[in-house]
Amino acid sequence: MYRQSLKGDSERFFELLKGDVVFLFVIGNTKTAEIPGITMAGANPDLIKFTPPADVELLYYGECKVIPFPPATPDGKPTPAIITYTALRLTDVPFLVIDSGLMVKPNTPHVSIGAPIGENIEIKQAMNLEDVEKAFKNAVEFGKQISKLADVIMIGESIPAGTTTALAILRALGIETMVSSSMPSNPVEIKERVVTKALERINGDESPLELIAKVGDPVMIGVCGIAIGSKKPVILAGGTQMVAMSHLIKRINENADIAIATTVYVANDSDALNHAPCPVIITDPGLSDSIKPGLRAYAEGFVKEGVGAGGATLLAYARGFSKEEFLKEIEKSYETVIETKL
Amino acid sequence: MYRQSLKGDSERFFELLKGDVVFLFVIGNTKTAEIPGITMAGANPDLIKFTPPADVELLYYGECKVIPFPPATPDGKPTPAIITYTALRLTDVPFLVIDSGLMVKPNTPHVSIGAPIGENIEIKQAMNLEDVEKAFKNAVEFGKQISKLADVIMIGESIPAGTTTALAILRALGIETMVSSSMPSNPVEIKERVVTKALERINGDESPLELIAKVGDPVMIGVCGIAIGSKKPVILAGGTQMVAMSHLIKRINENADIAIATTVYVANDSDALNHAPCPVIITDPGLSDSIKPGLRAYAEGFVKEGVGAGGATLLAYARGFSKEEFLKEIEKSYETVIETKL
Repeated sequence: MYRQSLKGDSERFFELLKGDVVFLFVIGNTKTAEIPGITMAGANPDLIKFTPPADVELLYYGECKVIPFPPATPDGKPTPAIITYTALRLTDVPFLVIDSGLMVKPNTPHVSIGAPIGENIEIKQAMNLEDVEKAFKNAVEFGKQISKLADVIMIGESIPAGTTTALAILRALGIETMVSSSMPSNPVEIKERVVTKALERINGDESPLELIAKVGDPVMIGVCGIAIGSKKPVILAGGTQMVAMSHLIKRINENADIAIATTVYVANDSDALNHAPCPVIITDPGLSDSIKPGLRAYAEGFVKEGVGAGGATLLAYARGFSKEEFLKEIEKSYETVIETKL
Repeated sequence: MYRQSLKGDSERFFELLKGDVVFLFVIGNTKTAEIPGITMAGANPDLIKFTPPADVELLYYGECKVIPFPPATPDGKPTPAIITYTALRLTDVPFLVIDSGLMVKPNTPHVSIGAPIGENIEIKQAMNLEDVEKAFKNAVEFGKQISKLADVIMIGESIPAGTTTALAILRALGIETMVSSSMPSNPVEIKERVVTKALERINGDESPLELIAKVGDPVMIGVCGIAIGSKKPVILAGGTQMVAMSHLIKRINENADIAIATTVYVANDSDALNHAPCPVIITDPGLSDSIKPGLRAYAEGFVKEGVGAGGATLLAYARGFSKEEFLKEIEKSYETVIETKL
């Protein structure tokens, strides 16, 4: 099994990936990531804010500029951008970066939608509603334009602590589930504490943009806005964060033509995917068979997803690469991008 | 005559416009525009810096946000963005904005390449070479990605006083010509004074990026970088500024597949187009026949070109609109966009 439909009709989306694809990476920051122990998306707390720009620099150049090494967990497990980098390298699919509330700008071209940085949702409202509305409008306009150029839009994300803000959105929508995590021991207690506090802000009559402003994060503005603006089908490449966003998108437009593509590692970790209001495609990048311990760790519960890794894997398969070929190429990327920096 | 080749084989570029086109607007500021009397691209000197963002807001929304009315000359002749807005409205061609050194950001999505604002070239070096190189690299990467999505890239610009910095580049390259102007009485003396002073910085052995850094403007970084990065033919939609940039592009890569498309009003105003190192296509938006005095002014020597107006006209013609139809639609835009604000 290298691909399966967890939910709904996913075949049409897979076929679309054989046509003109544009891959968008919507990246940003929430200060929720500064809560000790909440995320492993960075080698240490001071470096977490560099993870999103470093991820997309890796996609562009095979190396990072804002930090001298690729993002990794504290014990050296590499960013999932390594999987996405490999798929982009193999398929030559065009990709663009969207600054959706970054603390540090990447040394790559990037589309600005004027999104604010997200506050720590445990202690205050994530963002000002007016700022959210303005940035959302820009994201819609960008989605409208860029979708004219492709048959399908793929959207990945990078935002440390994004699963916590996603959990807050899901709970605010009344969906009882637990989200995935970059750690095998999901810091559930911390996430529950933060989300419980954040939900005190919720009345229950909020619009999707009000929910994002109260308990979400800025990446939600970019992803949802682009998906709403798109005139073509959209694949949300990510795990439980994309489940939260798919609900927001469907609340804005119930006819939005979206699907989720994610890794088998997320599917094994959380039941949230079953709560998605759209087709869900699960892909297996085959890392459990890797000769590299840093990659095998993904199959052992670390990292799991991010920077569109699941969607990127699906893209590689749609373009005719076998699971074995793709794994070999990921290992090759690992050698040039990661091992040279160890 | 609604279209003619002033120079070189232009037919191939015209045919490409029937395929997948992406229209890019590279906008920025140079403090050279603060020299009294040098530009009319703004109703008064304090408003000049708002002209580029207002121009692209007009393209997106049919109205401006950073200022409450569309850019115009002091006596009310409207920005050429009105022509481009009309062509985009008719053809539904996808377009994106590139922030290539803006003082004020537009309320639209825009691609950042990290370009600096240009200094006044009469009194100092335009930009730091290192900044130019970094932004150029981003522009090349963006050009590489976006060109995968189209058959041809069209690039327009908006930068007040851009003809003065263009003149400095042309002179620095040893090309003896005068550039066009947004005024019937081209402020030649001011331009000559500024350029003479700027050229004191030139040794004659500068690379193209060094020339831009010494006497150019930041929009040149974006336009040249995207053209160099593009894997597809590029049409530079503009007048004498694009002549200067076409020379820089050809110095970086003599095989760059570029052409210039501009209005007949520029062709009537300057011999600089004859000095282009690439095909030049002249289009006539037919404004001399307009029932609107503000549009007829173009044929009387005002404004003439900008925001890709000549290229946009060519695009409308390539997509099957007649000169009469296009003029009628420009007048319709004029009524909704300009007259409602008078």
